Amino acid sequence: MMMIRSIGLGIAMLAMTLGGAEARAEDGYDLWMRYRAPGSAEPGSAGIDVRGDSPTLRIAAAELRRGIAARGPASAIMLARAADPGVAALRLPVASLGDEGYLIRTVTLGGRRVTLVTANTDRGVLYGSFALLRHLQTGGSLDRVDLTSTPRVKLRVLNHWDNLDGVVERGYAGQSLWDWWTLPDFRDPRYTDYARANASIGINGTVLNNVNAKADSLTAPYIAKAAALADVFRPYGIKVYLSARFSAPIEIGGLKTADPLDPAVAAWWKAKSDEIYRAIPDFGGFLVKANSEGQPGPRDYHRSHADGANMLAAAVRPHGGIVMWRAFVYAETDPEDRAKQAYTEFKPLDGKFAGNVIVQVKNGAIDFQPREPFHPLFGAMPKTPLMIEFQITKEYLGFATHLAYLGPLFAETLAADTMAKGPGSTVAKVVDGSLEGHRLTGMAGVANIGRDRDWAGSTFNQANWFAFGRMAWDPTLKADAVAREWAAMTFSPAVVKPVVAMMMGSREAVVDYMTPLGLAHVMATGHHYGPGPWVADLKRPEWNPVYYH
Amino acid sequence: MMMIRSIGLGIAMLAMTLGGAEARAEDGYDLWMRYRAPGSAEPGSAGIDVRGDSPTLRIAAAELRRGIAARGPASAIMLARAADPGVAALRLPVASLGDEGYLIRTVTLGGRRVTLVTANTDRGVLYGSFALLRHLQTGGSLDRVDLTSTPRVKLRVLNHWDNLDGVVERGYAGQSLWDWWTLPDFRDPRYTDYARANASIGINGTVLNNVNAKADSLTAPYIAKAAALADVFRPYGIKVYLSARFSAPIEIGGLKTADPLDPAVAAWWKAKSDEIYRAIPDFGGFLVKANSEGQPGPRDYHRSHADGANMLAAAVRPHGGIVMWRAFVYAETDPEDRAKQAYTEFKPLDGKFAGNVIVQVKNGAIDFQPREPFHPLFGAMPKTPLMIEFQITKEYLGFATHLAYLGPLFAETLAADTMAKGPGSTVAKVVDGSLEGHRLTGMAGVANIGRDRDWAGSTFNQANWFAFGRMAWDPTLKADAVAREWAAMTFSPAVVKPVVAMMMGSREAVVDYMTPLGLAHVMATGHHYGPGPWVADLKRPEWNPVYYH
Repeated sequence: MMMIRSIGLGIAMLAMTLGGAEARAEDGYDLWMRYRAPGSAEPGSAGIDVRGDSPTLRIAAAELRRGIAARGPASAIMLARAADPGVAALRLPVASLGDEGYLIRTVTLGGRRVTLVTANTDRGVLYGSFALLRHLQTGGSLDRVDLTSTPRVKLRVLNHWDNLDGVVERGYAGQSLWDWWTLPDFRDPRYTDYARANASIGINGTVLNNVNAKADSLTAPYIAKAAALADVFRPYGIKVYLSARFSAPIEIGGLKTADPLDPAVAAWWKAKSDEIYRAIPDFGGFLVKANSEGQPGPRDYHRSHADGANMLAAAVRPHGGIVMWRAFVYAETDPEDRAKQAYTEFKPLDGKFAGNVIVQVKNGAIDFQPREPFHPLFGAMPKTPLMIEFQITKEYLGFATHLAYLGPLFAETLAADTMAKGPGSTVAKVVDGSLEGHRLTGMAGVANIGRDRDWAGSTFNQANWFAFGRMAWDPTLKADAVAREWAAMTFSPAVVKPVVAMMMGSREAVVDYMTPLGLAHVMATGHHYGPGPWVADLKRPEWNPVYYH
Repeated sequence: MMMIRSIGLGIAMLAMTLGGAEARAEDGYDLWMRYRAPGSAEPGSAGIDVRGDSPTLRIAAAELRRGIAARGPASAIMLARAADPGVAALRLPVASLGDEGYLIRTVTLGGRRVTLVTANTDRGVLYGSFALLRHLQTGGSLDRVDLTSTPRVKLRVLNHWDNLDGVVERGYAGQSLWDWWTLPDFRDPRYTDYARANASIGINGTVLNNVNAKADSLTAPYIAKAAALADVFRPYGIKVYLSARFSAPIEIGGLKTADPLDPAVAAWWKAKSDEIYRAIPDFGGFLVKANSEGQPGPRDYHRSHADGANMLAAAVRPHGGIVMWRAFVYAETDPEDRAKQAYTEFKPLDGKFAGNVIVQVKNGAIDFQPREPFHPLFGAMPKTPLMIEFQITKEYLGFATHLAYLGPLFAETLAADTMAKGPGSTVAKVVDGSLEGHRLTGMAGVANIGRDRDWAGSTFNQANWFAFGRMAWDPTLKADAVAREWAAMTFSPAVVKPVVAMMMGSREAVVDYMTPLGLAHVMATGHHYGPGPWVADLKRPEWNPVYYH
């Protein structure tokens, strides 16, 4: 039996432990940004020098300081815009970096040897700073660095299926991150960590609310709330978008119609857009799910999807905004096979969309199945920018309860060959615009993020968020390479091999048991889990698993 | 400019800081159980000795070890049941402790001077262990301890208004703590911390689901989920209860009626209770909201509340279960003043309820207003056990965005004099059974707990959970004394004075601005926030603020 000292000086003298403090350091909150101390946790001052000043540059420097503690004088890191006279004198190949790319190189600057992180914009410097941290976290050295990268896709966007009441549709990680009640006044520090995480993998946009949208999200109070979030996200290079309910002019505008060709409707959206841009000058634009699964849309007025999209596009165009118009359309009343409906409806509209409209197409024609062929619209609408929509949340892949690394699903779809212009016409080339010469390009991921401490319902689910961001930046990345990065950053380079082996086999395992014997869409009723291949009692034929076999 | 050492050995050699680790130690997760290290955080082995063994005793010892690190040999703590021969030989006054009280005293046992924590039951020892920690956290010493306490109220119960879809009605702290999807297989460690927190303040029961109940919660899958939670809570002395939907025999039982006098209905509830008790042998019983705000109930069949309650009581009686039957009844179609309806309906039923029924009465007759007179049923039903229902979540008190310490509200109601048996017939004496000699006594608190990291939406909201538990244990406690305990435990004894001053003034401030000029029930429409004294357009007269003035 051991003893404790008699004490009478009160709590301040009590020897009490911090409880679960150590366990908490691994509670998942830090995501892949686990900057570890290799023994002594004493945070030193890192050798980070910054030329120029902006909120974004300060964030980049702070992130590097957070990640790197001084270990003695040997090397230094310099953050500077490419236009800085000292940097410009180095004549580095910065022209091709565009407005988001970065260049990291060991150079001699002002007589000193430094690791220079440079870019044409502060956003680029921030991406470069995160890239340098990733380089170090995955075992790289500062001895001689030469890294350069430019995103191949312009819009790298999370879609939050978050309802205003806090429920996340197909969310398995707790309530919505957005606390609409305390916004706009209270800006939860977690919003900043959300922005950090996204910036660290290159995500530059977020649609705050569910595509099954409420008109309320377009009212003045909610615009103010969205503006508060936009303020937090802005220095991280992240734009805010909103899902727009097509019938909002009726529901909150007092109009009798939402017909896109009605001048009063167009004027309402124009005024609403002006109102939003007054609060959020860099508002990204609208995402719209129209005439699908009961949502209102232009077809209610016998107008086309292009009519609807172009009317909204005209409203945001003066402000530089865009419209992401979803091609996931099917109506219970349409007798045509669900797999064909989007193609049938959108293919004839090729070339009819305004220049600031991008059509958002799910990776497959059915609905985020464990495995699907690529959507037939890819390669079939050469005159229209198409962005791909992946699901990061695991609606059909075991919810949040199974390890299912989706990198192979993303990569498999992106590498699929549409043959639209002969061999090599991959989905990735449609998405990055190179196949048909589009400059408006994008990739959307339905977020798996909620208020759970670990953000995503499990540590391994975080890998899917990470993989989405990395592959949106570069759709040619390999799934296993991304998994290796993530595992090294999240755990340690020492465990990469066994961890990545588990990850790389996991999605195929889910395919095997969720769609056994090659059966497809075999979810039991009431949820998207299964298998339930015997289900045959639902109203619409292709809601029933038996339909597919 | 500072330097960092050139490194080439990869992440394991990188000096990286732990990020927000220190901030996280104060993120609110530890509630009032912040056992602090006074300098060195090195956890030593505390001098905790245990006689006997059980899961509960092991928990008690682990909690003390977690809280107290060895500071050198001087004193020791001994946990032992009162029946232990060595303890019995001390002839301590343990008879009056009942089955939940504890006694802590510095004694000589086996020739050694120890701080003995004893009780007639392991539960009592656990409560004693938490009491000893509280004693130390609030500045007490181990020099010479003499603490004894027995709860004055038998059922100290949280009511979770948690829906099965994760939404918490009047919840302002995130999604429901219960993750029904991953239950029963995954038992989130947080469930254990929930149990620890409750046990630390003497709460011994929890109603898992909303009083606006779904019948689904009584189906086999949900019983298994509730059983998993019960398994976690059991060693902490916490029983699980369920809200029962009165029409469940129709909805999930296939019956045509839920008439409580129909033998098939009674048989269904009997079988359902047997099924529950097979899974949860110490199931607490049912909580029922019947014929109120649209909920089904016995009045649908022209039966009384006693008929309904007694039928359910008969079903759980063989297993030792009870029924908590809510008196918060009002119907939109009843022309009588809402403040009178419960009195009118329940007063004539005094003496008609079965012995294992307790009627649960809100603190006031309207609905958890910032200030209300005590409910007129207190003192008016001498033959019926009445438990009081307080709201810990701040539905009418600023949601989670305002500091509003509810200790004064609880204490004010409990100290109110019903005059039922002359001066001194306080509500507290009705609640603790002493006024009318009831042994079945209880206090319910509508929980303010959710999945937010800090459990309650803010650190100060935690104080209301704490105060509820402490006052349920002893309804005569003073609000400021409880606030001092909480502030010392949560922050430090050094800041008690200013913190408690803020807390003690806070509820009155909310009263002043939520019910200005003495106006009552002045909530704006669509939420229970305000003030909106001008609202006059709602269907039922007393839903309108103007009705009250």
